[in-house]
Amino acid sequence: MEDRYISLAHGNGGRFMRELIKEVFAAHLANPCLDTRLDAVTLPWDNRQLVMSTDGFTVQPLEFPGGDIGSLAVHGTCNDLAVAGAIPVFLTLNAFIEEGFDLEVLDRLIASLARTAREMEVDVVAGDTKVLPRGQGGGLYLATTGVGRLDPRARLSLDGLQEGDRLLVSGPVGDHGIAVMLAREQFGLSGSLRSDAASVLPFTRILLDLPGLRFMRDPTRGGLVTVCHELCHASGLAVHLNEAAIPVREQVISVCQMLGYDPYYLACEGRVVAVLDESDADQALERWRDLPGGEEAALIGTLKSGKPRVHLETRIGGSRLLEELEDDPLPRIC
Amino acid sequence: MEDRYISLAHGNGGRFMRELIKEVFAAHLANPCLDTRLDAVTLPWDNRQLVMSTDGFTVQPLEFPGGDIGSLAVHGTCNDLAVAGAIPVFLTLNAFIEEGFDLEVLDRLIASLARTAREMEVDVVAGDTKVLPRGQGGGLYLATTGVGRLDPRARLSLDGLQEGDRLLVSGPVGDHGIAVMLAREQFGLSGSLRSDAASVLPFTRILLDLPGLRFMRDPTRGGLVTVCHELCHASGLAVHLNEAAIPVREQVISVCQMLGYDPYYLACEGRVVAVLDESDADQALERWRDLPGGEEAALIGTLKSGKPRVHLETRIGGSRLLEELEDDPLPRIC
Repeated sequence: MEDRYISLAHGNGGRFMRELIKEVFAAHLANPCLDTRLDAVTLPWDNRQLVMSTDGFTVQPLEFPGGDIGSLAVHGTCNDLAVAGAIPVFLTLNAFIEEGFDLEVLDRLIASLARTAREMEVDVVAGDTKVLPRGQGGGLYLATTGVGRLDPRARLSLDGLQEGDRLLVSGPVGDHGIAVMLAREQFGLSGSLRSDAASVLPFTRILLDLPGLRFMRDPTRGGLVTVCHELCHASGLAVHLNEAAIPVREQVISVCQMLGYDPYYLACEGRVVAVLDESDADQALERWRDLPGGEEAALIGTLKSGKPRVHLETRIGGSRLLEELEDDPLPRIC
Repeated sequence: MEDRYISLAHGNGGRFMRELIKEVFAAHLANPCLDTRLDAVTLPWDNRQLVMSTDGFTVQPLEFPGGDIGSLAVHGTCNDLAVAGAIPVFLTLNAFIEEGFDLEVLDRLIASLARTAREMEVDVVAGDTKVLPRGQGGGLYLATTGVGRLDPRARLSLDGLQEGDRLLVSGPVGDHGIAVMLAREQFGLSGSLRSDAASVLPFTRILLDLPGLRFMRDPTRGGLVTVCHELCHASGLAVHLNEAAIPVREQVISVCQMLGYDPYYLACEGRVVAVLDESDADQALERWRDLPGGEEAALIGTLKSGKPRVHLETRIGGSRLLEELEDDPLPRIC
């Protein structure tokens, strides 16, 4: 690693984070179950039905249009289980609360977390709270660990990716990133945009019986491009994205143009990217578009031979490389 | 709750924390599996063999004589599984790292965590890292969630406590609390005392076949007295502790006398309190004393009829009430 100290870029989902995880965490913790490329792990327990995932939440502000850290702490971990082909069943919860935090706000956030868990039909079965001395916390941090039951139809792996596979996204990208950014009001902008934070379980379950389904991932930190780089790393293939096909809301494009962000790097919290054999891609797209919230699902790209890079084929017929994320444009986004 | 804002006392294991958990977390999250009185939960999965526990770690300093936040993050969660009668199998890990944190220190702490996990024969199977902007973290916070397999011999419950039951402790209390306090050097004191942070699994396993074993708990935050209050709350009985029998190291007593602390409220990270029917208490004590590190195990008290209070029968023949912890003497102790 270039730096001797942790920087915000070590937390953004991009190259520095990947290197940190590889060189510090994976290097020391290596074991047959641990695959740091995946957001959830299928464990040798009860006929490999037990799937686990864990996620930390540090979003700022704690409440934003379309969600809050409580709902996010449920959706984030449940979505990681869902894209692994599992049905979420149990959650555990860690709360790190800063001294001086308003109890009324805490109560509202935990109520939201509980409501979201009920909607998802998951039970929070264990928890722990720690209080951080004033000035040593950012209000509230949460961590959730999820237990899910693997759907017997799920046959997902990064190892089966093939040339010609198609990429689908379940809806517009970047809403969460921009909604949180606007909620900070750092830029004097405001808008009606809401975070896309939601369960992706309907989207993942409905594809599980397609034999051509290879892999699914929710594009959170580092956004769509980061998922594409993971596909490149795993397959050794190139990803070609079709700019004209990628759904992005007008408001997201406007804010990105104003601030110089690229929407393809922005976090989503309720979208799925799926990779399928070409033969099943149209069928998958049709199923997604029939789901509530799936109207804008789209076929957005293809795995092709060539160097493992992410190419964006632009609307005007050009092509540009989408590099792996380095600087962090938005700390505390999830 | 008296206060509208979170105070350090909401994190100390005592009354305020119990009320916070009851009135905010348990109130919203209630479900048949969640028992906030327990540190681990036995889940309706795979014939109720699946036990889970989760714990957050915020100890300061991050390294102290006898341990560090990495080893603590393994022992803390594995010990919660162990006292529930389970064998730890898997862990998940969340790291919240502050911007500017020294990568060399991070590497050392994660190496320690990994070494401890290997010693415990548990695999860290999933993880997540978040970076906190400078000034919004305290260096490093960890959370671990553990999965254990219930020992079929385990029949532990807070519901079976009976008058006449005896309390055992597996070793001297307060070493961890004082070792961490001295490591802070806030008081200009120093000493050779080491934290007791260690696995309690040998101590828990060896009692599981005793039919008179009712309940076990590791006295972490809030120490021995807090465990005793939990026994009072659950049983409606009084706990009578025998001061002369409770093992406390000379060094711990000296520091406590100097600073006005009570050793019975100090955190341990490698001790167990067990409650047994009188008929099995001597046998349990013998087994513990035969274990390495168990030489100072002791029979320290009895459950008696009377108001659910904790009485200390003093060396000089008197008796004083040990109230539930209120103020937090030591934030970031675990």
